[in-house]
Formats: sequence, structure tokens, C-alpha cells
Amino acid sequence: MNFLSDTTAPAHPRLIEAISRANEGFAPSYGADPLSAQVRERLVDLFETDLEVLFTTAGTASNALALSVLAPRDGMILCHDEAHIHRDERGAPEFFTGGAKLLPLHGEHAKIDMAELDGALAEWPADFVHATPPKVLSLSQLAEAGSAYSLDAVRERAKAAKDHGLFVHMDGARFANALAHLDCSPAELTWKAGIDALSLGATKNGALAAEAVILFPSAADRFPALQAAQKRAGHMLAKMRYVAAQFDAWLDDGLWLELARDANAAGTALSDGLAAIEGVEIAHPTDGNEVFARLPETVADRMRDAGAGFYAWPDGSARFVASWCTREAEIKDLLKAARG
Amino acid sequence: MNFLSDTTAPAHPRLIEAISRANEGFAPSYGADPLSAQVRERLVDLFETDLEVLFTTAGTASNALALSVLAPRDGMILCHDEAHIHRDERGAPEFFTGGAKLLPLHGEHAKIDMAELDGALAEWPADFVHATPPKVLSLSQLAEAGSAYSLDAVRERAKAAKDHGLFVHMDGARFANALAHLDCSPAELTWKAGIDALSLGATKNGALAAEAVILFPSAADRFPALQAAQKRAGHMLAKMRYVAAQFDAWLDDGLWLELARDANAAGTALSDGLAAIEGVEIAHPTDGNEVFARLPETVADRMRDAGAGFYAWPDGSARFVASWCTREAEIKDLLKAARG
Amino acid sequence: MNFLSDTTAPAHPRLIEAISRANEGFAPSYGADPLSAQVRERLVDLFETDLEVLFTTAGTASNALALSVLAPRDGMILCHDEAHIHRDERGAPEFFTGGAKLLPLHGEHAKIDMAELDGALAEWPADFVHATPPKVLSLSQLAEAGSAYSLDAVRERAKAAKDHGLFVHMDGARFANALAHLDCSPAELTWKAGIDALSLGATKNGALAAEAVILFPSAADRFPALQAAQKRAGHMLAKMRYVAAQFDAWLDDGLWLELARDANAAGTALSDGLAAIEGVEIAHPTDGNEVFARLPETVADRMRDAGAGFYAWPDGSARFVASWCTREAEIKDLLKAARG
Amino acid sequence: MNFLSDTTAPAHPRLIEAISRANEGFAPSYGADPLSAQVRERLVDLFETDLEVLFTTAGTASNALALSVLAPRDGMILCHDEAHIHRDERGAPEFFTGGAKLLPLHGEHAKIDMAELDGALAEWPADFVHATPPKVLSLSQLAEAGSAYSLDAVRERAKAAKDHGLFVHMDGARFANALAHLDCSPAELTWKAGIDALSLGATKNGALAAEAVILFPSAADRFPALQAAQKRAGHMLAKMRYVAAQFDAWLDDGLWLELARDANAAGTALSDGLAAIEGVEIAHPTDGNEVFARLPETVADRMRDAGAGFYAWPDGSARFVASWCTREAEIKDLLKAARG
Repeated sequence: MNFLSDTTAPAHPRLIEAISRANEGFAPSYGADPLSAQVRERLVDLFETDLEVLFTTAGTASNALALSVLAPRDGMILCHDEAHIHRDERGAPEFFTGGAKLLPLHGEHAKIDMAELDGALAEWPADFVHATPPKVLSLSQLAEAGSAYSLDAVRERAKAAKDHGLFVHMDGARFANALAHLDCSPAELTWKAGIDALSLGATKNGALAAEAVILFPSAADRFPALQAAQKRAGHMLAKMRYVAAQFDAWLDDGLWLELARDANAAGTALSDGLAAIEGVEIAHPTDGNEVFARLPETVADRMRDAGAGFYAWPDGSARFVASWCTREAEIKDLLKAARG
Repeated sequence: MNFLSDTTAPAHPRLIEAISRANEGFAPSYGADPLSAQVRERLVDLFETDLEVLFTTAGTASNALALSVLAPRDGMILCHDEAHIHRDERGAPEFFTGGAKLLPLHGEHAKIDMAELDGALAEWPADFVHATPPKVLSLSQLAEAGSAYSLDAVRERAKAAKDHGLFVHMDGARFANALAHLDCSPAELTWKAGIDALSLGATKNGALAAEAVILFPSAADRFPALQAAQKRAGHMLAKMRYVAAQFDAWLDDGLWLELARDANAAGTALSDGLAAIEGVEIAHPTDGNEVFARLPETVADRMRDAGAGFYAWPDGSARFVASWCTREAEIKDLLKAARG
Repeated sequence: MNFLSDTTAPAHPRLIEAISRANEGFAPSYGADPLSAQVRERLVDLFETDLEVLFTTAGTASNALALSVLAPRDGMILCHDEAHIHRDERGAPEFFTGGAKLLPLHGEHAKIDMAELDGALAEWPADFVHATPPKVLSLSQLAEAGSAYSLDAVRERAKAAKDHGLFVHMDGARFANALAHLDCSPAELTWKAGIDALSLGATKNGALAAEAVILFPSAADRFPALQAAQKRAGHMLAKMRYVAAQFDAWLDDGLWLELARDANAAGTALSDGLAAIEGVEIAHPTDGNEVFARLPETVADRMRDAGAGFYAWPDGSARFVASWCTREAEIKDLLKAARG
Repeated sequence: MNFLSDTTAPAHPRLIEAISRANEGFAPSYGADPLSAQVRERLVDLFETDLEVLFTTAGTASNALALSVLAPRDGMILCHDEAHIHRDERGAPEFFTGGAKLLPLHGEHAKIDMAELDGALAEWPADFVHATPPKVLSLSQLAEAGSAYSLDAVRERAKAAKDHGLFVHMDGARFANALAHLDCSPAELTWKAGIDALSLGATKNGALAAEAVILFPSAADRFPALQAAQKRAGHMLAKMRYVAAQFDAWLDDGLWLELARDANAAGTALSDGLAAIEGVEIAHPTDGNEVFARLPETVADRMRDAGAGFYAWPDGSARFVASWCTREAEIKDLLKAARG
């Protein structure tokens, strides 16, 4: 009954197999291998647009690399106060950009409120030598509270940002979960909605260590700078084929969405089950594989006693994360323990 | 006949198997997994000392992370003019340190000359507010010319550095090859010789993507800073167990040294074979798996025509890199082609 | 009727004379001159404690230099949302620290609310590798709204910060005005209240370009780092005697407090006069030389038509800044124009 | 007999007077004052071209600011091994650029040898993701050995750099001395010779603290970035009129060249006098106000005993610096002491 994080789950066996298959003979290093090129083609098809992509092995790296080519070092990145880039990356965006400022905005369920965004854009001038100019809006999809921005919400925020000359970045550490929830196309959720750059995460959804930065055409001219930043940050792996192999298997036959749907379904089952228990309150909409529940202490204790793993969240709720490999029985056991 | 680089070689099957074995059930993330702890213990035994270690997936990351906790941002790192950290990492050390200065020193076979080192230490004051003070000496072992510093040469350079209050870092991207060549213990080649921090590379010697930073007791107090830097640089992988698994298998039963010996033997065979060809001159001592040869153009052409891969090196020689999987037949074929 | 800013005012003649006097013969460069040493002694007497001091020519430089030796690059600086270091220095603290994070806190009249401070200290862990740890609290005295923290308010905030292991910095661009208002000793308002480092500004209060960073004993061990940072940032002037000379004259015979009292008195007269006009509302307590007033549009127009200079402030009020040289007649003329 | 440095000399009285004159009434702050605009016009006339200019109070600031808008953070700056930016600025260029690499080149008399420059440009690729690309050539005029590049030498080096796509920066801390020596126009020595940006120093030649960064038309599009960098680095003084006033007086009636000529003449007299003493060898051409002489120890001792101030230089010579206010009698006294 491990609901601590989707980062504690193993990788899907098909990705291990893909790595094994990729381990044949020599291959050009540093991302020039044929498998990397093949995955790029897959992504072009999937996102229905030309694009540039590079691979990393950590979501923090993807976010920070993407932001570093979108925001100048004396610029500002607007994000939610609870965003991973602000709270959980030890200042990686500040480091990679060379000292850009992250402005934390508020909004329910870890989603940026439109009025907050409009306020910040009005308040911080775009071209005043004394002040840090807003240059990037970063949206987390799923957001940190397990909730998803609707398509319209993404579009509206991206439009406001673009009207002020900002780039829009999406932290898609759980992009597949959001996509499965919204049931739209990858293109609709990204460049068609105004996203310039996407951090696409596979690690939390079945990979060993596979993340990507995708630049859509509106930001593709930054690709050489992105590659240089990748090298300079030690994220240009010598044998990149093994990351490409993971993506290849992950995207194959829609495995990525299948795993996300399974994780989301587990999340929903868990959320519904918890909500039915007296005294339990679901704190945020369960749009993906994460459930935030306010628990009576007795309920929490019973779950802990039964060996369940979950985190106390800063907002006072308990966070349960389902993953691609969460089994129905585990949820039943957890709920049974919760009910006492 | 691929002699381009040991980074183009596949991984050893035992490492793939180890990854597969590690893919069982849940494991704490971000390096807190039992396998990571187990590898640390292995390294403690191997190096015959307490130490701190963290894993990365790229040698550039290991070097830059290590240097970033040894050198202050306004300090200086002494290295050879041909060092990887100076020539081939797009300024990663400058980035990670926050702007430290790399001072390129000269010396034959990409090894720092003692007089050059003494000169730099005399010339650059340790405590003058206007000048950048030397803070770290970085030695590459193997050096970039495929040559190894002797044990005495390491000791002598480390002593000079330490006498001036510097830390000593070893870039061990091909540490195993150097160790196999020198036939000494890991402890003798490192902390017993004055090394404070080691970038230990497995990727070029049989791993998929497995590198480590080891802090010996003299620098172990920097470990919390190193972990923070790892996180901030996006190098703290969520599922670190898969890197630990590679190291575990690599170290198991002395596989790492076996692979290094094989690669070195291939290097020697190739070097000897080339040296016997009229007009060919071996440019640097072949102490490991790299051969630098000055080739008559006809010889080079014949090899290229036969499909051999190798690089033209900036010093005018041709670089051939053998790897753990280089087969005797390939060398024979190459030499045959060379002889025409 | 120039009330735009105290930075538009000229320097006091006694400082010009002091510069002229200092212009005799040769003097050691880069701050080693006798006049600099003499000013240090004056400050030791004035602050009733040993201390370290260096001079700059801009408040932004003083703030950023001070913060850069108190906060590590992966640490956090807590400040008010309206603080100069957050809003008006183009990211200088981020630049000088190497990417530290500024966390904007709220509170009335640009003073940090205690609950906000406590909340931030509780929310952001001091020692969690994934999160940016709070390391410095920065208080502006006068605050950006022209208001002063009371002595107790400084003590309370400093204590909370110190209880969590933070350093406390005071941005004293208008320190003299605050001191004159609070009528306490420099020692009471600084190190006795828990301040570790002070940016002491003279430029807005009669100097040409003279600012200082003072490290009290609790932070004095950072002085060598501060000097190195000063050099590295291009703020170690070759002929420092001319900055020292300004401070010398400014402190002489209590001139600095006399000028601050004059400016404060002008501020009060202006504030009182405006408050008496129908429809005008004073937005923040006038504790120093700055007045923030919400004006009926007709009143504002009448003042502008009469040639008065003042700024529209982001909070909707109009900001009027008196300076050491504001004459009574100017205030009368302004009020007369305002009344129509 | 103070020959330690031209930074120990006082300012010329006309600059003090100019500051005093500028101290009338209110003036827009942060460089928007009329005097700053007026100096810009003067410089346009003087350099016979449109240009952008901003003022600082330290040469290190000017150099680092200029380099920070010419070199990307992952780029390389070529300079002489003895250049001030490499040896004497505590890594300011690395700091301001965000970690660019300075490559030290050699050449007699602290002037970059053409073969060294060509070699570096050939060796370091312009567009290879793994290596730091050369982006700026920085020439010191006067060079650190007191020698001047001839006009042809500047042109030849600038051309080689520009052929490889580099910007060319001139560190003109002693630009006036070089100009006086070469007897050419400011335009000829700068943009007409291929210089894109000039650090123009007045401090060593009669000012209190007045330096400028000039961007010629080929680099003028970097001006907004330069202003932002100036602000961010704390070098945008609130009351900039006092720096402008210094430049105004310095340029007035050719005072700047007059002072430089006086200093150069003193340098020549000193050099000639020393050269005539048995056993003394002039180490570098005395093209300006600096004399480097190899002295028999007895000669050096006699001078020191007579109270003369001069520095032992790293190359083994003794450095004597004349300034605008060096008197003939001082030189005579020094030479007399030297002769014993």
C-alpha cells in the first residue's frame, strides 16, 4: 500500500525491454543516434506539428532547461505559489536562467487564478529598466494539487501572457494524466492552446528516467541555445539511446496513455472511496492520479497502522498518489483500513 | 570497426540485467533507496575509507558538481589546457561554480607539468582581493591524451596543491582504465595520494549512464552542499535505483576492472600494431584504451575506405578508442586495412 | 516644487567641500586611504560597537552586496512584496547571490506582517534538499510606503528570523529619516534589535553618491567575502577617498540627522497640509520624508498645472518626497495649488 | 615621489569645480539628467559617429558591463594573459557574463601576438555544442606593460576577430595615454579600427571616479541590455549628474589629452633617465605613463630609502607610474636617488 509518490513505482517492463533491445552494437553518442531521431518523428506525428525535442533524465532538468532559454536572466517567470519549479526544485530555474525571478501567484487547487495573472501582468512593467520584466508564464498540468486546467483555462491564461509578450511553458511532469483526464489531443493541450515549450515527463508514468523538453514552432529558434544549455548543465548524456528507447516504448501503441488512464482510474477509485468515509473531505478535484484528502486523525492512524504510505501535505491534507501499477486490491485494502 | 569513442559502445549485458532486477516493487526515490546505500557500502570497502557518494548520469555533471563544492565562485581551478572540463564541457564548471575561472596549464601528453603548476601557484596569490585565488587542482586520470599520471606524479601534484591550500579533484571518466594500467589500489590512486574528490565514470566502461561523485573524508563536509547542488542542477533522479543498479553490477566480481583491462589490452594491441606500420608514429603513451597516432594520409585513407571510424584530433593525430567490447578481429581488420 | 524623489535633490554643500578638501596629494587606493579608516572609526563610535564597513556609490549595490554574503545562492531571502530589493533593483539580489530566491511577503504600509513572516518560516523548511531554505530576512527602514517599523516591530521580526537561523538585513536607504522619526540610537535600531547587516544610505539625504554596507559583529566574519564581492562587482573604487569624504562630512556635527529631521519635518508639513484638504486621504503613516496621498483628480490636476512634480504610485496614491533642501515656501505653494 | 599608481593621484581641480557647478537645484535621476545628455553629444562629436554611452565609477565595472552584453554566458573572451580583466578584477567578467570563459593569450609587452590569436581562433570552434565558442576579443590600450598597440596592430587583431564573428572590446583605462602617444583620432583608434565597445577611463587621468562604456554603432543594439545590466549590477547611480560633470570638464578644451600628454611626458622622462643608469634595463616600451624597469637591487634600495613608492611587478621588473600631476622635480629626485 505505497501511495507515497509515483516516483517510488517501478518502470513498466516494456521500457526495460526496449532498453535491452537498444543495447545492440555501436551508436552515435550525445543524442545523434537513430533512435533519438525516431522518437522525434513520433512526437512530430503525435503533436501534429514540427517541433524540436531533447531528452533529459529528470523533470527538474527539463523545466529548468526550458525556462533558461525562454527567460533572460534579468526577467521574471510567473508561476503558481505551489508550483514544483518554485517549491520543489531547490531554485533550479534561478540557477539555470542565471538569476531570473519567480513570482508566485495564487489560485485554488494550485491553478493560477486569472485575476492574479492579470494583476501581475498589469503591475510589473514590460520595459522599465528598474523592474524585472515578466517573460514567461509557467503552467503545471497536472497542477500540484492533482487538478487539471481545462482546455479553456489553459487558452485563457496563455492568451493573457502572449498579449504581454510572454512565452508560455507547461510543466508536464504528469502531462499524460492530464491528457487522459481531458480527453483531448496533445496538440490541443499544447501549441494550439498557446504553449511554446513543454516539459514532457515519462518517469512518473512508467519510465525509469525519461523526460523531454519540447519546443513548438513558436519557440523552436531557441533550440541551439537549448542544446548548449543541456551540454553545459551536464544533461547531454553520452549514450542517449537508452533514454530514447524508453520514450519509444512508452509512446508505442499508446502505452503512455494507457498507463495514465490506469493511474487516473486508481486515483478516482481511491478518491471516491475516501469521500464515502465519514469525516473525510476531498480537498481538491481528483483529475488525475493524486488524491488530497482531509482525514480525521483516527482514520489517518488506522491507515498508517495498516502499513499504508502517504504524505502529510503542507495544506493540512494527506496526499495519496496512485501509479500505473497500483492494484485494485491495494485500494480496497487501504479503504478497508481507513474504515476501521 | 568503430573506434570513434567508448561512448558509442553498448552497455555490458550484466548491467542491463541488474536494471531489470532492480525493477521490482516500490523503492524510496531521490537516492534514498536501499540499492544506493548498498553501493555506497561497496565503495567504502573498495576505497578502504569512509566516503560520501552521489550518482549522476553524465561525466560532465559529476565534474561540475564536484568542482562547484570545492571552488568558490570567485576562485580558480587549475587544469590542463586539454582537460575535458576546459575544452569539452561548454563551460559547465563555470556554470556550476557560478563563474569560477579555469586556468589552463600545459604539459606533455595532456598531463600538467610540475613547473607549470608551481609557476601558477606562485604567480596567483592565495589572498589578494583583486585577483582570483587558486582553490582547486583538477587532474584527469586517464588524461585526455590517453596517458596516465604515475602514482608519484599524482602525489607530487596533489602535494603542491595542498601546500597552497587547494583541493584536488580527479576527473576519472576513465578511472578504471588508469587503475588497470597502474595496477594499484583505488585508495592508493585517490585519497592516499591526496585526492579529495573523484568523478568516477562507468559510462565509458560498460554502463548505460552511470557516474558518481565521491567525496573522501578530507572533503566530506561538503556533502550536504553537493546534494543541494545535485538537486538544483536537476541531477537528483527520482528513481535513482536504476543508476545504483548499474554501479552494483559494474563493481560486482571486479567486472569494472575486467572490462577496463580488456579495453586497455585492445588499446595496446592497436597501438603496437599501428606503431609497426611504416610512417605511423604513436603520439602519446598508450596507457589505457586510447591510441593517438600520426598517420600518413594514405594510411588514414585506407582505414577510412575500409569503414573504420576514428577522429582527427586537434593536435594533428588520429584518435582511436577501444572499448570493453572491442573484438580482436576488429583490430586485425583495422591494421590490415592500414597496411593496405 | 519638485517632489519626485530625494534622488533628484542636489548634495549638501558641506559634502562638496569635503570632497574638495580630500583632493590633496596622493592617497592609497581601493579603500586603504586614511579617510576611509577614519570614517570607520566614526561609525564604530556612532553604533557603539565594533563593525566592518565598506563604501559603495549606489543603494542597490549595498543591498545586493550585503545579501550576497548573507544568503547562499540556493537560499531564500524574505522581504516585503513592495521592497526595493524585490521591485526596483532589476533582480540585483538574484544576480549578486547567484540565484537566491526572494519570497515576497505582505503587510500594511509596506511593512512585513508578523503572521506572514511566521507563516513563511513555518512553511519553508530549513533543511530539506528539495526546497529553498530561508536564510535572510530583509527589512526596509523606512519601508517603501514611507512608514517606519517601530523598535519593537524590528525586534520581533528579527527574533523570529534568528530563531530559525536567518540573518537579518536592513535596507537603510532612508535610515537617517527612520532614526530621526524613532528618536532612538543607531545601535538600538540595528544590532541591539537583531540586525546583522545594514545598508546605510547617504545619497537620498544630502550626499552625491555615498552608501555603505555595515556588518555588525554577528556577521563580521563575512567581511573578507564582502570585500571580494565588492571587487568582483566593480564596486571597489580606485579613489575611494571621495566617498569616504562624503560620509565624513555627512556624519560631522550630526549633519546627517539634521538633514533627515529637516526632510521629515517637510514631509509632515506636507502630509498635514494635504490631509486638511477635502477629499484627500493620506494612504500611509508619514513617518519620514515621503507622503502618499489619495487625491481627487481635480486636486492632482491643479498641482500638476502649477508645475509640481510627483509620482503616481502603483497603489493608486500619489507619492510626494521631501528632501533635505525642500523649502517651506515650496510646500506652501504646493498646498495652495492643491486647494485651488 | 609616489609612483605607485595613477589611482593614488588626486583629481584635477577643474573636475571638482565641475561637480560643484553641477550641484545646483534638482535634476532627473539615474542618468536622465541634461548633463549626461550633453556629455553624450560631446562624445558623438569627439568620436565622429553616433554612439551610446553610459557612465560608471570603476573601470572594472565598465569592462564587465561591456563584456556582459557582448559575450553570452557560455561564450569565450580572448584576452592577453596579463590583461586586467583576467588578472586584476577578481573574476568580474565571469560574474557579469554569467560564467563566460576567459582564454589567456600570450605576446610580448602584454600585447596579444597575432599567431596566438589566429591559433586560438582556429583551435576553438565557433559552433560545436561541446566547446565554448569564442565571442569577444578584448584588447587593452594601453596594455598592461605600458605599451600601446599600433593602429595597424589594432586593425589586424580586430579584423581577425571579426572574420570569425567576434566582437572586439577595448579596455581603455588609459585610453587617453594611448591616444596621446599614437597621435591619432579617437575614431581611428576605435570604431574605424574595428572596435565595437570601449571602456573609456578618466579616473586614472584626472577624475575622481568617472568611467564610461561606449557602444559604437556595430554594437549599439545592445544598449538596452547594457542599461539593464548597469541597473542590475548596482551601477546606475541615482545622481548621475556628478559623474557626467566630471566627464564634461575632463573633455572640455581638450583637458583629457593635455593631462595624458603630461603624464606620458613624465613617463618618458623617467624612462629615459632610468635607462641611462648603469645596470638598469627598461623592460617594455614606454608608450605612456608607465615605466617598467629591471633594477639592480642597490638601485632599487636607494630609491626606496629616498622614500620613492613603486611596485615590484610579477615579471621581475619595477613598475613606476607617472600621473597627470607628477612634477619634474619628483622625477629628478627619483633619478638622483637612483644614481646614488
